[in-house]
Amino acid sequence: MPEPTIVPQSSQPKLEELLRHIVKLLEKHRLVETLVERDRTSPRHELIESLVHRQHLVELQLKLRSLHPADIAYILEALPHEDRLLIWRQIEEERGGDVLLEVSDAVRDALIETLERPELLRVLEPLDADDLAELAEAVPDEVLADVSRRLPARDRDWLQTTMAYPEDRVGRLMSQDVLTVRESQTVEQVLRLLRGREDLPPNTDNLYVVDARHQLKGVLPLRALLLNDPERHVGELKSTDPVVFDANDNADDAARAFERYDLVSAPVLNERGKLIGRLTVDAVVDFIREASEEDALNRAGLRGDEDLFAPIWASARNRWLWLSVNLCTAFIASRAIGLFENTISQIVALATLMPIVAGIGGNSGNQTTALVVRGLALGEISAANKWYLAAKELGVGLMNGVVWGATVGLFAYGLYRNWQLGAVMAVAMLLNLVLAALVGVAIPLALHRLGRDPALGSSVLLTFITDGMGFFIFLGLATLFLL
Amino acid sequence: MPEPTIVPQSSQPKLEELLRHIVKLLEKHRLVETLVERDRTSPRHELIESLVHRQHLVELQLKLRSLHPADIAYILEALPHEDRLLIWRQIEEERGGDVLLEVSDAVRDALIETLERPELLRVLEPLDADDLAELAEAVPDEVLADVSRRLPARDRDWLQTTMAYPEDRVGRLMSQDVLTVRESQTVEQVLRLLRGREDLPPNTDNLYVVDARHQLKGVLPLRALLLNDPERHVGELKSTDPVVFDANDNADDAARAFERYDLVSAPVLNERGKLIGRLTVDAVVDFIREASEEDALNRAGLRGDEDLFAPIWASARNRWLWLSVNLCTAFIASRAIGLFENTISQIVALATLMPIVAGIGGNSGNQTTALVVRGLALGEISAANKWYLAAKELGVGLMNGVVWGATVGLFAYGLYRNWQLGAVMAVAMLLNLVLAALVGVAIPLALHRLGRDPALGSSVLLTFITDGMGFFIFLGLATLFLL
Repeated sequence: MPEPTIVPQSSQPKLEELLRHIVKLLEKHRLVETLVERDRTSPRHELIESLVHRQHLVELQLKLRSLHPADIAYILEALPHEDRLLIWRQIEEERGGDVLLEVSDAVRDALIETLERPELLRVLEPLDADDLAELAEAVPDEVLADVSRRLPARDRDWLQTTMAYPEDRVGRLMSQDVLTVRESQTVEQVLRLLRGREDLPPNTDNLYVVDARHQLKGVLPLRALLLNDPERHVGELKSTDPVVFDANDNADDAARAFERYDLVSAPVLNERGKLIGRLTVDAVVDFIREASEEDALNRAGLRGDEDLFAPIWASARNRWLWLSVNLCTAFIASRAIGLFENTISQIVALATLMPIVAGIGGNSGNQTTALVVRGLALGEISAANKWYLAAKELGVGLMNGVVWGATVGLFAYGLYRNWQLGAVMAVAMLLNLVLAALVGVAIPLALHRLGRDPALGSSVLLTFITDGMGFFIFLGLATLFLL
Repeated sequence: MPEPTIVPQSSQPKLEELLRHIVKLLEKHRLVETLVERDRTSPRHELIESLVHRQHLVELQLKLRSLHPADIAYILEALPHEDRLLIWRQIEEERGGDVLLEVSDAVRDALIETLERPELLRVLEPLDADDLAELAEAVPDEVLADVSRRLPARDRDWLQTTMAYPEDRVGRLMSQDVLTVRESQTVEQVLRLLRGREDLPPNTDNLYVVDARHQLKGVLPLRALLLNDPERHVGELKSTDPVVFDANDNADDAARAFERYDLVSAPVLNERGKLIGRLTVDAVVDFIREASEEDALNRAGLRGDEDLFAPIWASARNRWLWLSVNLCTAFIASRAIGLFENTISQIVALATLMPIVAGIGGNSGNQTTALVVRGLALGEISAANKWYLAAKELGVGLMNGVVWGATVGLFAYGLYRNWQLGAVMAVAMLLNLVLAALVGVAIPLALHRLGRDPALGSSVLLTFITDGMGFFIFLGLATLFLL
């Protein structure tokens, strides 16, 4: 008997190789299509088309059939729009739903758009209530209503329950598949019950101990079933201080708890303490990753779900909100310069030097802001220490102001041999760096206080102030002391 | 018998409340200290000191004793330097190591610095080889050598093995505690073996099936032990296509695989296919979170492990590298303006308008860069689609250029009633946005090609080009057409 070979199938290089293979198949398919097209006049045209044309598509279908839905999703994400749709059409209908679960929001929307209503219904058919809850945002309401009508009553109720929670709550991320036991059961009885099942839900490390009213009484680790005498009772073995979430808890806080306490799964209760679902680490990992990617894009002024290969028109519009906000702040900051056009016309060097004062102020302030945004996300900044933090950043700003003020002052002097100009430059730099430090702490704290996400918008507000005030301080000082 | 109450102990609001409580205790402690200090002349001074002074510290110690090490770590992270050290000194020595494992790198270094060598040895004593590997970077080499000498030979070897892998490899993140079984064993035998143990390692969802040479033959899911007949053999029940990692695999790729395939744990093999450890989801979650936080700070020009409450001097130095790079690029970009001082002295309005052209170019280019950086991190950009991507971003740049060029052109015309100036502004904006799109794609791709992290440095390079070229294009066109 041949030994089974164990291959690290998951490795990124393997996936990239797979992608290259698929791209080659697509190219061959396109080439044949072009050749057949050119040959359209020949009488054998239809024969050739039916014979050759399909060859590479069949190869593609076979390849796709062997792949994990997450790997198909990776390929779809990495392909330009047209190729993506071509691949999508080669996927068997009964696997379409699993693939939709794995792709990003933007690509999911694009794929669902290509499906007629009956097709979409067939794709959603094999999914369970958990999966449907995950896709709900992307599916038109009537279709969702249609699909959920076919679910068993219990699943339909559950779908309604989970969908009632906002997107950033635990109730929306939880899954339905909890295994419950009673305190009075023995290990033996529980084992027999489990053997009666075909499989356990993924990420099952605990069973949940509930009473008749489905109130949580504790959790029974799976390992307790393996390590203990079959005669013992669940009541003696259960652990009574598990980490438990309320369905209304913030998903980000829950993710932090998973991180802190190294959880694999945790029970989710409703307001009345009833066990309604569980949160599993796979959902948490996806949540953490999506949130951090969305954050990174948001910080650069993109909607979190922009698709790398979206059509030009969609991409351009996606960027307008941010650019128009930036344009407004740039207009206003430029008016600070407009105030001093008379000064500039007398000392043109000021026009050359002013972007340096503004730019370094922005960079320095953004460092402070990034640190404060992280501290707020981790819950490390509170009323108790925010003044300490502001004082510390002010100190850093002052120290940086002295160092970099002196540097740019010397630079200006070296360039124009005018020590007054150098002094004005140095003082303006110092003042702008101190301002940047204070504003860099104040803006994220203020946004947080107002209940907004400080990661979003802190940077644009900060740059606006360090630009505008940088120009104003530098040109103002120059007007006072150099004219 | 009173019902055990189940409290959601993990929630963020609870933690923040805990922090407030601790800060209050610290304040009381400080207050008493001051009062005692003032009363130094009184004869009862020493009595008061010994009686009152300790009261709040004892309360603190009791509170800390009831907390999970991760929660103590959270409190340490959230406190200013002095308070942090005061709390650190109240933690029992045998729990110190667990707390060190949970704090961030920067805070870890600061805490270890306060310990004398014998204290540090006592703190590290209760830790196992996995934990020591995690702390190794922060502990002086001689101390580590001392501690590892006390380990059993097997653990010492393992510590050396894992430490030989670079920090971003799977070999460094893996843990030692694998449970192995043989194909010839029955479920019954395996269960008996497990019952002989006190506990299973955390995150154990699979046992590993190995042969006599410790080569991996497959994995046996824990659930297979629960769901199957005790007479069956491991060989029949094992799954033979598990996701497997090589110890040299990139940790980031491994984290992606955990995410894609919803893993809880996975075996790690060395170059010769021998099972040497396993990677668990708790290590992966920590890795994902740390990497994303480090990324966010790096993008703002901070070292990833800057401590929110570091001393001013340390913080300021931490920021100098980035600021000095930015200063250099700002100096060079400003020389582009210097070339046209003559033009500016004739049309001062140019000085007012030029930061708008440069700024919007930078914003737009950073949007493109953020998208490309994410695509590279996800492995979605390859030789096959990079030209497609560049063409698409060029299209977006052109479209944005027309829209925003027209907008700023009209703005300039409205302000100065000079249509030639408006036209120059519009064309300069268009050109700079097209340049920003091309450079925004090219820079991260080039950094990636050179084996550098494109998330680091892309933005500073991009802004340098959009600033410098923005000034040059705008002032150059003005010199050609307006003078």
